[in-house]
Amino acid sequence: MNDNTRIAILGGGHGAFAHAADLSIKGLEVNLFEIPEMAETIAEVKRRGGIESEPDPSTGLKGGFGKLHKVTSDAGEAFDGVDVVFVVVPAFAQEAFAKAIAPHVKEDQVIVLSPGNFGGAIVFARVLRQHGCKPLPVLCEAQSMIYACRKSGPASVKIHGFKEGMGVAAFPSRLTGKAMSVLQKIYPKLKAAESVLWTGLSNPNPISHPTITILNAGRIEGTSGDFLFYVEGVTPAVRRVFDTLDKERMAVGAELGLKLVPNREMTKRWYRHQSVGEEMHDTSKLGVYQSIRAQKELDNRYLTEDVPYGLVPLEDMGKLVGVDTPICRSLIDLSNSLLGVDFRQTGRTLRNIGLGGMSVFQIQRLVEEGEI
Amino acid sequence: MNDNTRIAILGGGHGAFAHAADLSIKGLEVNLFEIPEMAETIAEVKRRGGIESEPDPSTGLKGGFGKLHKVTSDAGEAFDGVDVVFVVVPAFAQEAFAKAIAPHVKEDQVIVLSPGNFGGAIVFARVLRQHGCKPLPVLCEAQSMIYACRKSGPASVKIHGFKEGMGVAAFPSRLTGKAMSVLQKIYPKLKAAESVLWTGLSNPNPISHPTITILNAGRIEGTSGDFLFYVEGVTPAVRRVFDTLDKERMAVGAELGLKLVPNREMTKRWYRHQSVGEEMHDTSKLGVYQSIRAQKELDNRYLTEDVPYGLVPLEDMGKLVGVDTPICRSLIDLSNSLLGVDFRQTGRTLRNIGLGGMSVFQIQRLVEEGEI
Repeated sequence: MNDNTRIAILGGGHGAFAHAADLSIKGLEVNLFEIPEMAETIAEVKRRGGIESEPDPSTGLKGGFGKLHKVTSDAGEAFDGVDVVFVVVPAFAQEAFAKAIAPHVKEDQVIVLSPGNFGGAIVFARVLRQHGCKPLPVLCEAQSMIYACRKSGPASVKIHGFKEGMGVAAFPSRLTGKAMSVLQKIYPKLKAAESVLWTGLSNPNPISHPTITILNAGRIEGTSGDFLFYVEGVTPAVRRVFDTLDKERMAVGAELGLKLVPNREMTKRWYRHQSVGEEMHDTSKLGVYQSIRAQKELDNRYLTEDVPYGLVPLEDMGKLVGVDTPICRSLIDLSNSLLGVDFRQTGRTLRNIGLGGMSVFQIQRLVEEGEI
Repeated sequence: MNDNTRIAILGGGHGAFAHAADLSIKGLEVNLFEIPEMAETIAEVKRRGGIESEPDPSTGLKGGFGKLHKVTSDAGEAFDGVDVVFVVVPAFAQEAFAKAIAPHVKEDQVIVLSPGNFGGAIVFARVLRQHGCKPLPVLCEAQSMIYACRKSGPASVKIHGFKEGMGVAAFPSRLTGKAMSVLQKIYPKLKAAESVLWTGLSNPNPISHPTITILNAGRIEGTSGDFLFYVEGVTPAVRRVFDTLDKERMAVGAELGLKLVPNREMTKRWYRHQSVGEEMHDTSKLGVYQSIRAQKELDNRYLTEDVPYGLVPLEDMGKLVGVDTPICRSLIDLSNSLLGVDFRQTGRTLRNIGLGGMSVFQIQRLVEEGEI
């Protein structure tokens, strides 16, 4: 691997656009890959040859046009000569991407699920193996996505926030050091995390998104999301509920021996350079969260991703370690009823990711060593 | 008891005003009583000597000024010569009223808790006994309040709806027939209900109010309730949640051997003469629910009454009969977190109303016979 790390970004959503634009503006060679079924999301990027980035000045990022090296739905082409891969897709799409890239992945590549969501790397490793990828690359999970962003058009993205000190762990953890030596060349302020159990339980989205969504469900559906999600949707009582939920998360983590960071503290650390306080609805001229509007409908990743891939495993880990999680359970049950689904069946329980029946010790051993 | 039944209305809220105004307009002799601590709520009524009623034409009720016989905070005065007493107060005030009236209650009086909320008559009987009332009057519970109404001023009330076929049961049930012969002179369309278990589990308020409130919590707190509660607050997904909750209620009732009526069907029956369909948010020119605005804050009886006196006993009865009630449980847990309280401690569980450890059979026997 040379100093000019070559990168592939996988996905065609908000985050993939932000990664691709920002890293190419920083001078790196970047390929953008989307699976053929979703190729429409990158069609205009392909036509224009890149993505326009519009970062908030407080992020410290440069804006402009990020010219991409390749924009493709051919995985072989996207992976050719690439050192680091960021998989910036919703949790429910991780398996499809793993399957698509399996034939092209190489052992010396570093693949980062950004974010991993709970169990993402474990699932990714299994699917890669099932599709003939052997030996595995260095697989990592980020606790969240490094950019807070929204697409502003078919080939442009607005970046509201840029996280400092975000945690990344490899699966297994013994490879985290190796991964970080590569990743910190790209994002110098990333931090090594304890394990993928830590990253899996440290994404703040499942704490805030479902809480705000459910406690504003009537308004979202009734007005098609015509309000400011973090400003108008977060009142003191709403905040109280997600503080309670965060305490449940911290209690589960403590039983697993993890040093989790409270949600409010995490937000402050990430965005201190952008002068964001601990209150989501703080009026801030810098606006990481200020201008973000609510989703247009309830059937949205704030529930369909954050509940099955965030709250369902939190509840499940709680059961494993004997910690009751009533708010977590309530948000799952209400999501199921609001959408007429069963996220406990489709989401990431230990059983669903292949760890059913394991003890806490066995799971800890697995994430550290990659085997039991 | 002569044909011109004399009545006392207890309370100073929306419902007490509607009862007092409507029954006096109908030509009955009506006393209005409020406990001394709350005397301010009836001060203007006392000054004017009555209450102005403004019924929606669809109710079929006459409007005008209802001149009251007595308006007082002296229970002895209020009860003198009275045949029927309607206790139209929130569940959490029932004990205070029972204590205040205990020395003045007579055996041949019929007392109706309107509504009973779960266990109201059992609690009322105990408090009357504790304060020397012996023998007890005929104690009844209504499943809900017969009027849908809101005060429009310190001595006036708007009546949006008037329920037909509302259920009433005596505690014990063996006295229901005796009570109905008196009550149907006042409200001819009241119906005899199976028992106070039926009325306790048949108030629709705990099904709709907490569901709508919690799924619109951010909007209520953020806008001080500046939206139409049943029109804008009830979207298809919100409706789906309270249908699920209603199925939990029906399942608990079935295990108790009760013939409960589904919420949607109940609403249709009550308001058929007012042309209300099964959807709360049906556009109706008749407007039983159409013009009702949301509460100004979350700390309101839609949670503080309907959760501890409606959902808490539903969950508790579910545990007794082995029926899981996940939506009910979720709404209790989220209410607790939103308000920073513990409604399971303060609300009506079987233990809290003195029936802890009883079997289903013993409880059925108690509500039917008044003893075990």
